[in-house]
Amino acid sequence: MNPTVRAEIITIGDEILFGQITDTNTQWIGAELTGIGIRPVRKTSVGDKKEDIISAFTEASKRVDVIIVTGGLGPTKDDITKHTFCDYFGSQLKMNEEALALVTEFFAKRGRPMTELNIQQAALPDNCTYIPNLWGTAPGMWFEKDGVVYVSLPGVPYEMKSLMQFEILPRLKAHFVLNIIQHKIVKTIGIGESFLAEKIAPWEDALPDHIKLAYLPHFGQVRLRLTGTGSDQQLLDSQLQEQVDLLVPQIEEHVYGYDSDELESVIGALLTKHEATIGTAESCTGGFLAQRLTSLAGSSRYFEGSVVSYSNFLKMKLLGVQEETLETYGAVSEQTAREMAEGARKVLNTTYAISTTGIAGPDGGTPEKPVGTVWIACATPTETVTQLLKLSNIRNINIELTTTYALNLLRKTILKAEKEEV
Amino acid sequence: MNPTVRAEIITIGDEILFGQITDTNTQWIGAELTGIGIRPVRKTSVGDKKEDIISAFTEASKRVDVIIVTGGLGPTKDDITKHTFCDYFGSQLKMNEEALALVTEFFAKRGRPMTELNIQQAALPDNCTYIPNLWGTAPGMWFEKDGVVYVSLPGVPYEMKSLMQFEILPRLKAHFVLNIIQHKIVKTIGIGESFLAEKIAPWEDALPDHIKLAYLPHFGQVRLRLTGTGSDQQLLDSQLQEQVDLLVPQIEEHVYGYDSDELESVIGALLTKHEATIGTAESCTGGFLAQRLTSLAGSSRYFEGSVVSYSNFLKMKLLGVQEETLETYGAVSEQTAREMAEGARKVLNTTYAISTTGIAGPDGGTPEKPVGTVWIACATPTETVTQLLKLSNIRNINIELTTTYALNLLRKTILKAEKEEV
Repeated sequence: MNPTVRAEIITIGDEILFGQITDTNTQWIGAELTGIGIRPVRKTSVGDKKEDIISAFTEASKRVDVIIVTGGLGPTKDDITKHTFCDYFGSQLKMNEEALALVTEFFAKRGRPMTELNIQQAALPDNCTYIPNLWGTAPGMWFEKDGVVYVSLPGVPYEMKSLMQFEILPRLKAHFVLNIIQHKIVKTIGIGESFLAEKIAPWEDALPDHIKLAYLPHFGQVRLRLTGTGSDQQLLDSQLQEQVDLLVPQIEEHVYGYDSDELESVIGALLTKHEATIGTAESCTGGFLAQRLTSLAGSSRYFEGSVVSYSNFLKMKLLGVQEETLETYGAVSEQTAREMAEGARKVLNTTYAISTTGIAGPDGGTPEKPVGTVWIACATPTETVTQLLKLSNIRNINIELTTTYALNLLRKTILKAEKEEV
Repeated sequence: MNPTVRAEIITIGDEILFGQITDTNTQWIGAELTGIGIRPVRKTSVGDKKEDIISAFTEASKRVDVIIVTGGLGPTKDDITKHTFCDYFGSQLKMNEEALALVTEFFAKRGRPMTELNIQQAALPDNCTYIPNLWGTAPGMWFEKDGVVYVSLPGVPYEMKSLMQFEILPRLKAHFVLNIIQHKIVKTIGIGESFLAEKIAPWEDALPDHIKLAYLPHFGQVRLRLTGTGSDQQLLDSQLQEQVDLLVPQIEEHVYGYDSDELESVIGALLTKHEATIGTAESCTGGFLAQRLTSLAGSSRYFEGSVVSYSNFLKMKLLGVQEETLETYGAVSEQTAREMAEGARKVLNTTYAISTTGIAGPDGGTPEKPVGTVWIACATPTETVTQLLKLSNIRNINIELTTTYALNLLRKTILKAEKEEV
């Protein structure tokens, strides 16, 4: 096996330290580096302070082979990455004519005037390799010093991702002799981490040394990630697959997918296969079920539409829930969930419909129906399946969990219909 | 001024480095520490490897006063934080009876069996102060060594947040003499970062030394964050307010809120004030508009419901869009957006309704209507306002931006109605 190429991801910006923006960049970069066989061993965030950035560079250069730096390249005054690189390398800022031409074109195309700040974005440290940014105004930069590669990218996610994908990853693959790191992920739902762990302990203990297991719990789901390291892609792939084949029969009822599968994509594939359609009737999830189903490209093939009925008035008017049902059992009840799903199936003219009605919180609970009480239902051409959830007292967690469990109820209901058909 | 108390946030877990989960913890911790006057100066993520964790502890202990560690405390075998703490401090794991009683009760209450792995979670390094976790099974831990405080928390966001809020933040406030760091945020929409920067340059250049400005762009919005450091809370607050009062008149048309305001909350307050209600008719946003409006607790006061109409059939059936309109102008057109909003206002029986119809992508574009073409509309009791958006070719960005611009159109329309009433 080749020696592992190690990476550190450094983000620059007070806003990240102070918790004022969500950093989604480093997750993406970590996954992409892993994907080409570079092992991220550390992530570091520092503020907009020259000394702190330089000390992060210095420390990282001692432990890794490649350093990916994002942020601190915008047009405004709190951005200082470029100046810091000059200090660190002892280089000078110099106007890069190629970069200037590109940024000029960028503004001309959009019919927008260019400011002096934008022009200055084309001035680069004179020891860097210029990486053209076709998606924004801050160029990428590539430096090499003492065997370490430094890559600097803007912090805007779309620009960073485009630069990585089209410029940086290919250059890294050409620059290093890379080992292969491969993952297989088995995705489970409806079983807790420790129960899963006890159940599969003998299998886990017998894993070979070059294959590692991690448990990744997330909102009612646990992903089991197998990571293998090797030099032969095909061999590694078959070794990982062998372990997956040993594992899955032990936990079959809880497995809904693999690798990049999501509940949404698994459901999308099932619906497409059966030429079936889906709609939703949502109370407590407020549109989140529809949003998750439509977040996938191509979902218009099977997703017809939704009714979000927060008020009882709309539950009756649009979904045909009986006034008597609401009066007798309340809006948060099995009966209402059932009538919502059945009504949605009719009005939206779909094969399946799922409904949610519950008390998301933080207020609105009663002793009989505390915050976190939720009913979900799935209506099919032949039956309606319901499920009671007892969740937390935290609004966004309840919305997220209800959505996940409703999608899983739909998935199981389709699978059941599939079996009955055969 | 007191010397600044500096913090480092360390997260443990290969899954974070490999980009397999989204880390939302460190953003939250950063914001909370800042809020009590502790300055986060670095965030570090390391993998599940003892040497890497120990070197992160060692480095951090040289630069900060408090180290917050999350992750690596779950019941399964890839979690190793506790053992590493023992090695680092030269201490021993010892069953903590208080912790054991709590975890036993935790499972008893839920009627679930306790596994041996769960019991082991109550074994703690013998030099730690035990911090009870009422929200899960992994206890919090507090260590002190050579003047540095180490806090260890589980990585599950809900548990971590509860422990921080009720246990750790109060203890930190009692332990340190803290400076005051205060922020004021001015939130803008509809103007780019560099234009904003040029516009307010004279004001920015005149800021006093103890007040710093940062530009935080995010999906069509730019947040301007002022950060002041001092020892007198009231004085600092009035100094920051003075700067805000100088700034806002220069960019008034772009300012929609302050500090924790979001478009959703600003709209919620406007609707509540006017006892008005809102509904949505969504095509390309697929329920995301409804989801954002209902993400706020108390939104049932003004949010009635939504129709998500992906298909033309449902646009006609549920919203009353004319077949002729769809045939003549297409589903993505000003006319359709208008009829959707007006139809939703009627069918949902609301004061206002907003609609979206567009080509989110990645496919479905034509030369006349490329991917990213979106029409939005807002219907009021007296008029319907429409707006054309030309966005990107990236599906999730288009959904996100459309939602933000539609909310802003609603906000501006309510404000206009407010002015006309006076």
